[in-house]
Amino acid sequence: MTDKNFPNTPNMIAPRYTQIPSFLRAPMSRDFENLDIGIVGIAYDGALTNRAGARHGPREVRNASSLMRTTHHVTKANPYANARIADVGDVDFNSVFDIEKTHAEITAFIKQMTDANVMPLSVGGDHSISLPILRSVAASGPVALIHIDAHTDTWDQFQGSKFNHGSPFRRATEEGLIDPTKTIQIGIRGAQNSPEGWEYSEKHGMRVMFIEEVQKVGIQEVIKEARALVGDMPVYLTFDIDSLDPVYAPGTGTPEIGGLTTSEAMTLIRGLRGLNYVGADVVEVSPPFDVGGLTSLTAATIMYEILCNMSEVGSKSGKAG
Amino acid sequence: MTDKNFPNTPNMIAPRYTQIPSFLRAPMSRDFENLDIGIVGIAYDGALTNRAGARHGPREVRNASSLMRTTHHVTKANPYANARIADVGDVDFNSVFDIEKTHAEITAFIKQMTDANVMPLSVGGDHSISLPILRSVAASGPVALIHIDAHTDTWDQFQGSKFNHGSPFRRATEEGLIDPTKTIQIGIRGAQNSPEGWEYSEKHGMRVMFIEEVQKVGIQEVIKEARALVGDMPVYLTFDIDSLDPVYAPGTGTPEIGGLTTSEAMTLIRGLRGLNYVGADVVEVSPPFDVGGLTSLTAATIMYEILCNMSEVGSKSGKAG
Amino acid sequence: MTDKNFPNTPNMIAPRYTQIPSFLRAPMSRDFENLDIGIVGIAYDGALTNRAGARHGPREVRNASSLMRTTHHVTKANPYANARIADVGDVDFNSVFDIEKTHAEITAFIKQMTDANVMPLSVGGDHSISLPILRSVAASGPVALIHIDAHTDTWDQFQGSKFNHGSPFRRATEEGLIDPTKTIQIGIRGAQNSPEGWEYSEKHGMRVMFIEEVQKVGIQEVIKEARALVGDMPVYLTFDIDSLDPVYAPGTGTPEIGGLTTSEAMTLIRGLRGLNYVGADVVEVSPPFDVGGLTSLTAATIMYEILCNMSEVGSKSGKAG
Amino acid sequence: MTDKNFPNTPNMIAPRYTQIPSFLRAPMSRDFENLDIGIVGIAYDGALTNRAGARHGPREVRNASSLMRTTHHVTKANPYANARIADVGDVDFNSVFDIEKTHAEITAFIKQMTDANVMPLSVGGDHSISLPILRSVAASGPVALIHIDAHTDTWDQFQGSKFNHGSPFRRATEEGLIDPTKTIQIGIRGAQNSPEGWEYSEKHGMRVMFIEEVQKVGIQEVIKEARALVGDMPVYLTFDIDSLDPVYAPGTGTPEIGGLTTSEAMTLIRGLRGLNYVGADVVEVSPPFDVGGLTSLTAATIMYEILCNMSEVGSKSGKAG
Amino acid sequence: MTDKNFPNTPNMIAPRYTQIPSFLRAPMSRDFENLDIGIVGIAYDGALTNRAGARHGPREVRNASSLMRTTHHVTKANPYANARIADVGDVDFNSVFDIEKTHAEITAFIKQMTDANVMPLSVGGDHSISLPILRSVAASGPVALIHIDAHTDTWDQFQGSKFNHGSPFRRATEEGLIDPTKTIQIGIRGAQNSPEGWEYSEKHGMRVMFIEEVQKVGIQEVIKEARALVGDMPVYLTFDIDSLDPVYAPGTGTPEIGGLTTSEAMTLIRGLRGLNYVGADVVEVSPPFDVGGLTSLTAATIMYEILCNMSEVGSKSGKAG
Amino acid sequence: MTDKNFPNTPNMIAPRYTQIPSFLRAPMSRDFENLDIGIVGIAYDGALTNRAGARHGPREVRNASSLMRTTHHVTKANPYANARIADVGDVDFNSVFDIEKTHAEITAFIKQMTDANVMPLSVGGDHSISLPILRSVAASGPVALIHIDAHTDTWDQFQGSKFNHGSPFRRATEEGLIDPTKTIQIGIRGAQNSPEGWEYSEKHGMRVMFIEEVQKVGIQEVIKEARALVGDMPVYLTFDIDSLDPVYAPGTGTPEIGGLTTSEAMTLIRGLRGLNYVGADVVEVSPPFDVGGLTSLTAATIMYEILCNMSEVGSKSGKAG
Repeated sequence: MTDKNFPNTPNMIAPRYTQIPSFLRAPMSRDFENLDIGIVGIAYDGALTNRAGARHGPREVRNASSLMRTTHHVTKANPYANARIADVGDVDFNSVFDIEKTHAEITAFIKQMTDANVMPLSVGGDHSISLPILRSVAASGPVALIHIDAHTDTWDQFQGSKFNHGSPFRRATEEGLIDPTKTIQIGIRGAQNSPEGWEYSEKHGMRVMFIEEVQKVGIQEVIKEARALVGDMPVYLTFDIDSLDPVYAPGTGTPEIGGLTTSEAMTLIRGLRGLNYVGADVVEVSPPFDVGGLTSLTAATIMYEILCNMSEVGSKSGKAG
Repeated sequence: MTDKNFPNTPNMIAPRYTQIPSFLRAPMSRDFENLDIGIVGIAYDGALTNRAGARHGPREVRNASSLMRTTHHVTKANPYANARIADVGDVDFNSVFDIEKTHAEITAFIKQMTDANVMPLSVGGDHSISLPILRSVAASGPVALIHIDAHTDTWDQFQGSKFNHGSPFRRATEEGLIDPTKTIQIGIRGAQNSPEGWEYSEKHGMRVMFIEEVQKVGIQEVIKEARALVGDMPVYLTFDIDSLDPVYAPGTGTPEIGGLTTSEAMTLIRGLRGLNYVGADVVEVSPPFDVGGLTSLTAATIMYEILCNMSEVGSKSGKAG
Repeated sequence: MTDKNFPNTPNMIAPRYTQIPSFLRAPMSRDFENLDIGIVGIAYDGALTNRAGARHGPREVRNASSLMRTTHHVTKANPYANARIADVGDVDFNSVFDIEKTHAEITAFIKQMTDANVMPLSVGGDHSISLPILRSVAASGPVALIHIDAHTDTWDQFQGSKFNHGSPFRRATEEGLIDPTKTIQIGIRGAQNSPEGWEYSEKHGMRVMFIEEVQKVGIQEVIKEARALVGDMPVYLTFDIDSLDPVYAPGTGTPEIGGLTTSEAMTLIRGLRGLNYVGADVVEVSPPFDVGGLTSLTAATIMYEILCNMSEVGSKSGKAG
Repeated sequence: MTDKNFPNTPNMIAPRYTQIPSFLRAPMSRDFENLDIGIVGIAYDGALTNRAGARHGPREVRNASSLMRTTHHVTKANPYANARIADVGDVDFNSVFDIEKTHAEITAFIKQMTDANVMPLSVGGDHSISLPILRSVAASGPVALIHIDAHTDTWDQFQGSKFNHGSPFRRATEEGLIDPTKTIQIGIRGAQNSPEGWEYSEKHGMRVMFIEEVQKVGIQEVIKEARALVGDMPVYLTFDIDSLDPVYAPGTGTPEIGGLTTSEAMTLIRGLRGLNYVGADVVEVSPPFDVGGLTSLTAATIMYEILCNMSEVGSKSGKAG
Repeated sequence: MTDKNFPNTPNMIAPRYTQIPSFLRAPMSRDFENLDIGIVGIAYDGALTNRAGARHGPREVRNASSLMRTTHHVTKANPYANARIADVGDVDFNSVFDIEKTHAEITAFIKQMTDANVMPLSVGGDHSISLPILRSVAASGPVALIHIDAHTDTWDQFQGSKFNHGSPFRRATEEGLIDPTKTIQIGIRGAQNSPEGWEYSEKHGMRVMFIEEVQKVGIQEVIKEARALVGDMPVYLTFDIDSLDPVYAPGTGTPEIGGLTTSEAMTLIRGLRGLNYVGADVVEVSPPFDVGGLTSLTAATIMYEILCNMSEVGSKSGKAG
Repeated sequence: MTDKNFPNTPNMIAPRYTQIPSFLRAPMSRDFENLDIGIVGIAYDGALTNRAGARHGPREVRNASSLMRTTHHVTKANPYANARIADVGDVDFNSVFDIEKTHAEITAFIKQMTDANVMPLSVGGDHSISLPILRSVAASGPVALIHIDAHTDTWDQFQGSKFNHGSPFRRATEEGLIDPTKTIQIGIRGAQNSPEGWEYSEKHGMRVMFIEEVQKVGIQEVIKEARALVGDMPVYLTFDIDSLDPVYAPGTGTPEIGGLTTSEAMTLIRGLRGLNYVGADVVEVSPPFDVGGLTSLTAATIMYEILCNMSEVGSKSGKAG
């Protein structure tokens, strides 16, 4: 049975509550040769240390993302005019009860994309997924990292595992996937039971901007510093939805009050236009803890903003500028 | 761009929270020549007289329906082994502000299916959609009707329209699409401002079983009577989710307490196995009024039960028995 | 300023989500001389011993009650054709921090109604309100009581008060407002910290039907026994929403699983047609604990069923039969 | 039957959860001769292009508005001391399935008010209602427009209708009801599938302030510019609740993250005191998508702030200053 | 620091919303020598195959269980008079990312209890926890099993793990912890992707009662059969909350409509009084999917009913009869 | 029965969803001789004038507070290293239907603590509880007051009671418990039916900062003024959760839009480090009106921030600095 006639390129001007929800109403495709950017769901939360539910993230972000449209109201850019973009579905899993095997499956899937020069825009899932993604996108050497989050995620281990969702960027540093001196962590806050993670980040040269500093210097200064740090290195952007204040993103596992506003986050992302992206992710959306779909809507919009930036990186097809 | 590699036949044993939600995790296809049954969303609620939101029904029923599986626990039947089944997407709309034009678009879409001998299993949307569906499935003569609902939907008009969701089976009678003497309405209840609709049904020979009678005689008697009435005529099954008690289906526009239980409804549908189905629908799911996704889960299970029955009608491919 | 043109008799066939919600869309009036039945809100919950919120009951029951209509689907009766019915607003309070003063205000308000031969159908509020209502409706001698509830509400005192919501029918017995030998309590269940209340009821001659007995003998037997007990005495009907299983009425202060179904409750009330009603109440709806408005919808429908019965008691205007 | 004794002027110091909820606990009246301002519900959402439910707006805004009081904490003004204000109920509908007929009914109802020099403060309902309101309030010539919204609502058509909720101010321009050069649109944001609406506004001389400009220049500058633009022309104020960030107003059909805060909105409205108002509306509250009643509470407070401004326009009775 | 004065034996007649919520307001203690029954939380959901959140079960069941009281309304028994009962806290975890290590920690904790002749009443957590509990309570030989559930949980493996929540009773059979010929599974239903689990149960001699059979023969017959099967063997009772219809227990990972009512479940448990219990559990409560706390309330009541039965097994202290 | 082995000092690095929720996972103890700070729940809401439910506050704040940890991300301070801190349970009540008797019970309980030099950090409950707390902590003379709230709570009486939740600081002034000239009220807003309360505050020398002034001068100025006013006097801090904007704290009885952000509130509290605290409270959390547990999470974090300040006041044990 084939599906040649199925409307897999949704009509973006159709009523938004209609049809099967692909990410952003992008076409559904795994024809990687003819894609520049693949939006991929990673419905995994086996590495959580706290509240459950991030496995349900991709589903609900897809659902909410139908509210998005094409032309950006500030830049007037249209990512779909710049690049060939598709929803490539979710990573298929065969070993969800074993973190390391699951991570290997994620790495393998993303590698199919990067081998075909398709940039991954991933939607989690818990934050542990950034590590196996980096194992593919940074396979040829460490990348710069822009990390927007309430937590540095450079803790060592918890309950005996070094691969839980509080540790990916410590492991990525150890594995040479990211250059810690080209890493900036923005929005950090919330009490901890030890300063270990904060100290690891700072000791290894990461630029840790606690939320208080962000609020004091303002987003424009944050942008300036991030751009200066990253320069034209290949850069990976990871956006933990808990970087935002819980009023914007209640549906997450480890909420910390006093976070970024969505206006700040969108201004920040727009200020990071023109960088040399190799991939990005939006993680830690936990729909069972959401209220009114707000977190999913926010994640979808953040994803659209990031996609705009990614779409401006040169396309294989010559589509993008 | 093609999507030849996209996993549009979801792996039914994958974790159920993964991948893009097609109805029941069926493949997505409009290749009608190679289908026996097409599950179609009709995301329309412009004919509602009361609480809003049925336009959001197909989306959430798709989402919840991933919890369904293949092999029935009572009959041990597997509809996917019997027939070629796909999610054919939603009807595409171009005139949602005009009931009659929208109805014409529904009729035209369903006609594409019936012309290819694909039986439609539709998911609404408000109950007005049964009329334009019947205009296609009953194009060659009146069909029998099994109508499970709290309301007879044989009222004449409301707010000047004869095509609102309280009137489809009066219109269908007038248009010769259903045979009222081969029509049974099961689960009727709730006060009305006039007995007009009840009287229309009875005057035209429909068998109206109020919920009190259903509860008194029991479901097995209801089955017996419905089977005797319908015989081997072509039959259309329409299931309004408000036939169920609101505890099972709070997410609907016109809830009436004191309704069917889901056990009764499933027993009833299973008792209607072997009839000569020409189509069916499940309507009036309004997700904004739902709590905890219960109504969508219920609708998805009811849809699976109906699909089991439909899959046993002879298949073009010789697959079904 | 007058409101002579205000549409205080809502058009019952207008869309039900429109206009200001009076109870059942009845006219709003305190012209007691021209009324037979007054539906009155008693937004008081100062006598609760457990979960909060019954003060918000009348508001939300009014809101949900717009879904009700005029003609009963079983009896085909129309209460508005039988009697002059109005929403008389809420009892006005001046001392909500003092149970006994509030009770006195309730008694005084109801007395205005009973003095004008207007039967009160009250919507609570916590169950303590039945006591001050009875002080008016039973002013001339003890009445029979049909009491549908999970609890006998014949406990003595709690936290030093003899007027909390667990004690009204003990006080009513002591004050000679009800005849305990003409009292039936239906649906009783749930563990208690002492059998004191159950014992009080039985010792004073009340007929206590635990839910297990109700389920065993069936509703028709319950009806038969209640009718035999009450005979043609003046009778007051009090319906605690927690008599229902919490799936039908989650929004209440002291839920007990394993209760009546709404079908059972409605059958019971319909079976109590033709009694010599002097008033009735529906109490313990706590909207902050409700989900999806289900409890309010249920309360509104129960209220409509009770109103049908009350409307058949002879009207001053000769309207009723 | 009359309702002469009904407490239709609620006691504003009574507990706020009591009595029937009129808007702001204002008296209920259609005695237009003795009114200066009529608050009117317009429970219509037949012109929505996206998520459902605005028909339920007036009900829930009324409910939440009981939390409002009389004396403003900044200005110390009391609108009820300035003007004769009533809840005039909802517009009565007879043709809700036909946008144009419904619009005609709205125009006719508002005309009854404007003919009696009663200023309408309308509560929607979808944004399409502003057009038929303007057909009455601007009957004698174009008015200035202060339009607070995420969307310019100057798109042309959708699904074949020129009267959907994305087009009222394009139609109002074409019909000469508003002067586009005296129109300011504040808070605009969110991607679109084409820049058509933005371009129409700007091409016709409307002042379009995207949210980024609002945030950059600050509310005081916005006020200054709006006042300068409008001068002492008759002015209509239209407030779409989706102008606010979705954290303040999740219950709306087309949420766009990154919007106004309620502090900004209230400061803006207070800064627009003393203008020559001819009417105002608050629209697009969709309670089924609300969480915790927050959107309704916000809408009620915004309505109170606008009412304060409107109450200072000269009263027929000489009450206002 | 000691806590000698802390009120760890809550006053059962204090208002139920007060104080720290231990299970059923029982004292908090791990003084196993002076206990007969220990209620233990097992906040683990790492073996789930479907929807997330059972890790949050013990917290919310504790919270809801404050609504319970001492004296049963049917039996008039008081479990606290029969046995020494305490909340022993949750099992402490050190390896939550490894199912088998976590299971070992559960076994070790329960062994501390069984070594001291304390019967465990466990609250999950996903259903995988029954296996490690059985490894302690059935250490000296296979026990009989009364298993109330929608699923047989005798599937082999999923995603590479033999210890997921769909397999505990297959493993328990293999390990000789339960006697399959003394095992009854009650309430089974819901489609499956293969009949493998059902077939395993039946092939090994388990008595599988699908819900249709339960409904047909009635609960009294189920009781009779279960009692006959189990006799006076040591018996373990495992209650999966998804045995109940989702209207009673929406907060669970794998809901299946058409399940047991709470009345049926309570009648069933009461009918199993006097058996030779060695332990019991209530599992699969997932609060993030719950609505209105209903599932937790139900689980708490079921737990109380089971506790009544367990308390009648002979006490070390001679307290019980 | 003793509980000597119960883990009443929860392991702060255990998974946060495990174990019985004491406040902030502090040990549970009433051994006042060995405590510096006692966190106490006051589950009372009998003095509310508006929406119900604050009685449920302590329970849910305890639950949410498990998400808190030890080391502050800005100050790097650890309150548990500074002082001996415990959850002392809830105040036990015997007269909840009588405000004045309940207040006396609160005073007596707090007196046990202050007699042992244990500083109370109380969690309400409605705001009336501050008065009986002050009767103990200010027993030896008036204290300074930092009062963060939307309302001045210096109204006189409501519904005949002078002890409702709108009046505590008027009574405290009259009783000489606070020095009004050393009192600052921050965040005041929202219309009132009379300016009486505002005027009382100002007339008696309290510094009333309306929210507009707070937003204009900024939090650093507010801190400066508060510190200057209070100096080194003994000071009590009272934090009404409704001081925050309702998006951060929807679960409260009297929400007023346009309030403080949580960032502002935390900055404010951190700016009040080093004062001479004698106690503090966080009040008016009403969980039944909360959404997604956000208000409880916010209250828990605010409580943690206040605790950090309190822990730096000299300890009896010499622990604190």
